[in-house]
Amino acid sequence: MSAIPHDFVRKTAQLSEEVTRPFPNSRKIHVTGSRPDIRVPMREVTLTPTQTNQGPEENPPVLIYDTSGPYTDPEARIDLLAGLPDIRSGWIAEREDTEQLDGPTSAFGRERQNDPQLAHLRFEHLRTPRRAKSGRNVTQMHYARQGIITPEMEYVAIRENMRLDELRADPRYAKLLRQHPGQSFGAAIPETITPEFVRDEIACGRAIIPANINHPELEPMIIGRNFRVKINTNIGNSALTSSIEEEVEKMVWSARWGGDTLMDLSTGKHIHETREWILRNAPMPIGTVPIYQALEKVDGKPEELSWEIVRDTLIEQAEQGVDYFTIHAGVLLRYVPLTADRLTGIVSRGGSILAKWCLAHHQENFLYTHFEEICEIMKAYDVAFSLGDGLRPGSLADANDAAQFAELETLGELTQVAWKHDVQVMIEGPGHVPLQMVRENMTKELADCFEAPFYTLGPIVTDIAPAYDHITSGMGAANIGWYGTAMLCYVTPKEHLGLPNKEDVREGIITYKIAAHAADLAKGLPGAQIQDNALSKARFEFRWEDQFNLSLDPERAREYHDATLPHQSHKVAHFCSMCGPHFCSMKITQDVRDYAANQRIENLDAAVAEGMREKAREFREDGAAIYKAV
Amino acid sequence: MSAIPHDFVRKTAQLSEEVTRPFPNSRKIHVTGSRPDIRVPMREVTLTPTQTNQGPEENPPVLIYDTSGPYTDPEARIDLLAGLPDIRSGWIAEREDTEQLDGPTSAFGRERQNDPQLAHLRFEHLRTPRRAKSGRNVTQMHYARQGIITPEMEYVAIRENMRLDELRADPRYAKLLRQHPGQSFGAAIPETITPEFVRDEIACGRAIIPANINHPELEPMIIGRNFRVKINTNIGNSALTSSIEEEVEKMVWSARWGGDTLMDLSTGKHIHETREWILRNAPMPIGTVPIYQALEKVDGKPEELSWEIVRDTLIEQAEQGVDYFTIHAGVLLRYVPLTADRLTGIVSRGGSILAKWCLAHHQENFLYTHFEEICEIMKAYDVAFSLGDGLRPGSLADANDAAQFAELETLGELTQVAWKHDVQVMIEGPGHVPLQMVRENMTKELADCFEAPFYTLGPIVTDIAPAYDHITSGMGAANIGWYGTAMLCYVTPKEHLGLPNKEDVREGIITYKIAAHAADLAKGLPGAQIQDNALSKARFEFRWEDQFNLSLDPERAREYHDATLPHQSHKVAHFCSMCGPHFCSMKITQDVRDYAANQRIENLDAAVAEGMREKAREFREDGAAIYKAV
Repeated sequence: MSAIPHDFVRKTAQLSEEVTRPFPNSRKIHVTGSRPDIRVPMREVTLTPTQTNQGPEENPPVLIYDTSGPYTDPEARIDLLAGLPDIRSGWIAEREDTEQLDGPTSAFGRERQNDPQLAHLRFEHLRTPRRAKSGRNVTQMHYARQGIITPEMEYVAIRENMRLDELRADPRYAKLLRQHPGQSFGAAIPETITPEFVRDEIACGRAIIPANINHPELEPMIIGRNFRVKINTNIGNSALTSSIEEEVEKMVWSARWGGDTLMDLSTGKHIHETREWILRNAPMPIGTVPIYQALEKVDGKPEELSWEIVRDTLIEQAEQGVDYFTIHAGVLLRYVPLTADRLTGIVSRGGSILAKWCLAHHQENFLYTHFEEICEIMKAYDVAFSLGDGLRPGSLADANDAAQFAELETLGELTQVAWKHDVQVMIEGPGHVPLQMVRENMTKELADCFEAPFYTLGPIVTDIAPAYDHITSGMGAANIGWYGTAMLCYVTPKEHLGLPNKEDVREGIITYKIAAHAADLAKGLPGAQIQDNALSKARFEFRWEDQFNLSLDPERAREYHDATLPHQSHKVAHFCSMCGPHFCSMKITQDVRDYAANQRIENLDAAVAEGMREKAREFREDGAAIYKAV
Repeated sequence: MSAIPHDFVRKTAQLSEEVTRPFPNSRKIHVTGSRPDIRVPMREVTLTPTQTNQGPEENPPVLIYDTSGPYTDPEARIDLLAGLPDIRSGWIAEREDTEQLDGPTSAFGRERQNDPQLAHLRFEHLRTPRRAKSGRNVTQMHYARQGIITPEMEYVAIRENMRLDELRADPRYAKLLRQHPGQSFGAAIPETITPEFVRDEIACGRAIIPANINHPELEPMIIGRNFRVKINTNIGNSALTSSIEEEVEKMVWSARWGGDTLMDLSTGKHIHETREWILRNAPMPIGTVPIYQALEKVDGKPEELSWEIVRDTLIEQAEQGVDYFTIHAGVLLRYVPLTADRLTGIVSRGGSILAKWCLAHHQENFLYTHFEEICEIMKAYDVAFSLGDGLRPGSLADANDAAQFAELETLGELTQVAWKHDVQVMIEGPGHVPLQMVRENMTKELADCFEAPFYTLGPIVTDIAPAYDHITSGMGAANIGWYGTAMLCYVTPKEHLGLPNKEDVREGIITYKIAAHAADLAKGLPGAQIQDNALSKARFEFRWEDQFNLSLDPERAREYHDATLPHQSHKVAHFCSMCGPHFCSMKITQDVRDYAANQRIENLDAAVAEGMREKAREFREDGAAIYKAV
């Protein structure tokens, strides 16, 4: 087993330049809320002007929702050893409903903290954990239901809104704001996201802000069908490879490309320490599947799991700051035989562990029977539930079957229990589902789980393309996002085959950003089309640099362009490599347009035709040469 | 201009091993029709048995629709200099409605054939072209409407059917044939594709078999919404790069990965010669945009185009054997001003050329005014129309606008004209369209164009991901295929940025094979799920080699697996690299299943629980080691 991070020396913990270099022509801005400590980061992309016959015409900057944290900010001082700046401690403290503990209250947490052999692995600046005062409930849902708008809620309102009201009042943005009406399938996205709207959505359970009081470094974000569709990424050293340092680098890499949340699925001997490093440096909410770690504690024997071990693990992780837990409480004993005739049985790790436990003991799933006690823990730290789909289909053949939908109904029942405790909930879903059966999943989830945010893996829409499952699943993800899924769990090209490397992670994230954005556009999210419009305008006007800079992956776009036309001069060329200068349809169209826009078609007389011929001669001068520089 | 294929020496024309090596565990079989010269190729993948407690259990071979031509057949002798074997000349000759000409009848064709300077580039074994006898019509539609089932129709019926009736009668396939009902949006795919069904679909215009009488080498295939969704790929040396030899290699590469048809979009000085090499070696229908070559003949000046030049080009290409022509006859003068307010004007090359011609002459598009004459040419060789969407949207902003839909209505009008001549027609569509507006395109096409097969580029569902537009468009393609599009035109990662290399072509094709297959599954195409079921079964049973071999890209699947677990022994491992041996959910599930399937849950007593613990111990023995070899 090569899982031991033997080479992880604290003093050298550094990120590569690759994961931190700023995006081109971009700067980090902060929009301040109603109080100076609410400062919401956004990325502003500056564009070049359009050259017209009347001189240069400004192209106003475009704002991009920014998940990258301080890492892409050249002004920020990054120190992995110290962790990210603390954004929320003040907000949490001023609510006066929490107390600072002396140290971890979980047995395992204490043990790890006191083990001198772990000193070289341990994050140096450990905070003592915070917990709700006895009898208090510190969830965002609890506050929302009392009518309180927390700083977190205001933060996400600003973040979702992306200054849209200001853009609407600015005539430079009039054309960029053009957008097609959406088809929302019942979502009700307002023209402007207000803090009150956020509060209301959280109060009714339609959205969540995963934000553990012990993860004050995070930049709050919201998950719900009336907000931007989000994406989750997974990292984790498997039993077979990788070190802590690699995991932190992967987390930052994930943030860079657009991961909204991140699940740490690490296994192996040092998951506690790895998690601490990740949390202290993570700008996004972190999720885990606590049962994985619990299983490590019983040497991988599912049948030896117990409520006590899991309980201690939940507290251990909650006190580190994990923001949401996947809890497979819907895998009921009576559902297990429903999987016996499946083509691919139970493919969820958590699901199979619990199924095995249930059968071994012939007892009901202890996560189900202890669910209210879990709620008590969740609300003391504000950990959100991600109710796990342990019986999700692992092949098209098993899609939407009795096992899958029985579990979904139970997740609905558990949602009601969690909400009774004001604990935030999202519902995990899909897996492998053919296109025509995707919608049923969404419809059923909305009905059975009372519009709690749906969080789906893919779905993968055909089983026959291992090595391309980011794509098979991206197709399903775009559709289910459109239908109403609030967060899409990414899939990488290595799914079903191996462990993703950094390039796989990037490929998976960009695919899912595409799916999420396609869904936003399809639902009609206000402002969603601005970036598309700005990029297409740049493309049409041959502003190559702007086209690159506005794209989801500016580095790859530039690299691909340069593979065919490497010279800097080609980036101001009024043609592209597909057609060459003679055939450039965009160029021809520009000419057509200049005429058509200014003349009524009836007036296109001989003089005009001559003018066009002149123009044609002009842009035909030479083969590969550039005929006009901007 | 580096377009001149100076290094193309006929005697060395060879394909690389990479494009011809057979697929693993696969063999080419041929299914014979009602006469011995109808021999339809399919790929048969042999699988390993499943190891059970009762001994090995056979997994029957899986048939895969095979587009790769003889190139992947180790028994076939490939000689690019001689071209592929002639499959259809006998069929064509026996109809006695064609005549062998003395040589090309186009002025340009004669000129090229007689130019001694082209000798080193010219394909050696030029056939003299064939043409319909005076007054005869040789289109598949013409035969179909007379009630004649041609060998081509029988060929495609066998090809589409994939021996499904035999599989249904074979008990080994019972489980693999399990499939979810589709949602067909009005498509009516029969349980079994018969030659008579093919004839009927062609007669009514709902499907086409592009098969020029001068391309006897092709393996007939059908395009229509009641058949498998097909994909088209594009190749073409741009003005800026590539040689003839590269183009032929790309064509074979495209066939290998699953391109059903191929458009040769070459420009530059030797497109006539390049096309000849491609056609003589192409097992799939070849399409072109003749206006591109016509434009070369007038030195790239759209306004100097004339009907006479285009007419000569159509005949030149028809006599070489091009199977379908993109004809932009729907770009009407009065539609051009409709594009003036667009964000991205006219982005189709053909569309912009015609628009420019219309404006320069202030006359109606000569392809429109000469449309009946074009039909006369088409029916003399059986070239199918691909009615071009010259006004397709180049950005989300321009989707489904007045210009696009006005042209679509005109394409419907032209469809009726073509059908009056019994000429086969498909309709080009989409471009950039957000998800919620995709369906309208399909609905409108079916209505306006009387169910003529729709052939769409993508659509791309967001503009913001250059370098990933195979994915943005694959999402749109899967959906529009599901809604009823008959053929999807692929997009590569280099779209909007540069010229695709071989890896880009492969990536684009696989993405589109996924989209087409996802659409087949969603429509409920009988038998579509066999490959999914067989692959998922292999996956669940840890038959790694079978999983690779059944996938769309066996080489990439294996490569990705080996990146994490390189050893041969790992390919028989009962775990995968994501979870490692301890956590393998599939393994755990297999255990659960063994018990759950054999016992009623109530009987799971202590003895059984003990048995499970025993089992658990057994597969836990060691870390990374393999605990069971098959």
